[in-house]
Amino acid sequence: MSYKTFSTLALALSAALMGVSASADTLKFGKTEDAIKYRQNALFVMSQHFGSLGAMANGRAEFNADLAKQNGAVLETLATLPWQAFGGGTEGGKSKPEIWKEKTKFDDHANKFVAEAGKLGAAAKTGDLAQLKAAFGPAAQTCKACHDAFRNR
Amino acid sequence: MSYKTFSTLALALSAALMGVSASADTLKFGKTEDAIKYRQNALFVMSQHFGSLGAMANGRAEFNADLAKQNGAVLETLATLPWQAFGGGTEGGKSKPEIWKEKTKFDDHANKFVAEAGKLGAAAKTGDLAQLKAAFGPAAQTCKACHDAFRNR
Repeated sequence: MSYKTFSTLALALSAALMGVSASADTLKFGKTEDAIKYRQNALFVMSQHFGSLGAMANGRAEFNADLAKQNGAVLETLATLPWQAFGGGTEGGKSKPEIWKEKTKFDDHANKFVAEAGKLGAAAKTGDLAQLKAAFGPAAQTCKACHDAFRNR
Repeated sequence: MSYKTFSTLALALSAALMGVSASADTLKFGKTEDAIKYRQNALFVMSQHFGSLGAMANGRAEFNADLAKQNGAVLETLATLPWQAFGGGTEGGKSKPEIWKEKTKFDDHANKFVAEAGKLGAAAKTGDLAQLKAAFGPAAQTCKACHDAFRNR
């Protein structure tokens, strides 16, 4: 087993242990446009809660422990949702075709994000700004890495 | 205290006891269009998970206890989100102006929905189709009542 494979498995395992999974397929989409709308909508809603944590982590907003806790809990749920809507035959929107050509790589990105979002959510729920700050950067990095590889501008 | 006031308070209390609240204000929206986009997106994502439970409750899809459980858990979180994005000065989208003119009535609808969605989520998590069926109708009725009163077609 390569280190990369091991790393991917370890991330998937840690996501599973946190009760989250990037492959929680809770929905079936009848039409491609429904899948596209769902993933875009879920990502936007998630980005708002992620951004609220980021504003506190980066000092652009005053730290509020209750707010961080609530946004962390919402983020943990939302982080698992969008990925089920990138099924076969749902090319479109801002998605690069590479998502479907390199599905394993895309899933790896999604799993890494879910794992880091889980850590960020857990950090947010501690009520400790230092922990929030420490967890935010790595989570934001997983967003950027996936967007750079798989999202059209 | 009128029966109606008591009923509203009882629903708000039951929502609070279930750990949900229609007034969980976790976000601040800089622009009206962000608030509109957020509420539309959150409602659409929620509708997909709600619809998955409805398909099982109404026999249009085969009952799957794991799927019901997962969708119930997601619904409980999502049900609390849209309402914070109907703040003062965010008129627009499909929202009738009555939402802001009759804010107490609108909040009452939202609280009823959150309470019923909480019951539906709890029913879905039992893995018992009969409980899912019993809880789905009242929850769907709270969607319809609010749409009839406050949403433009």
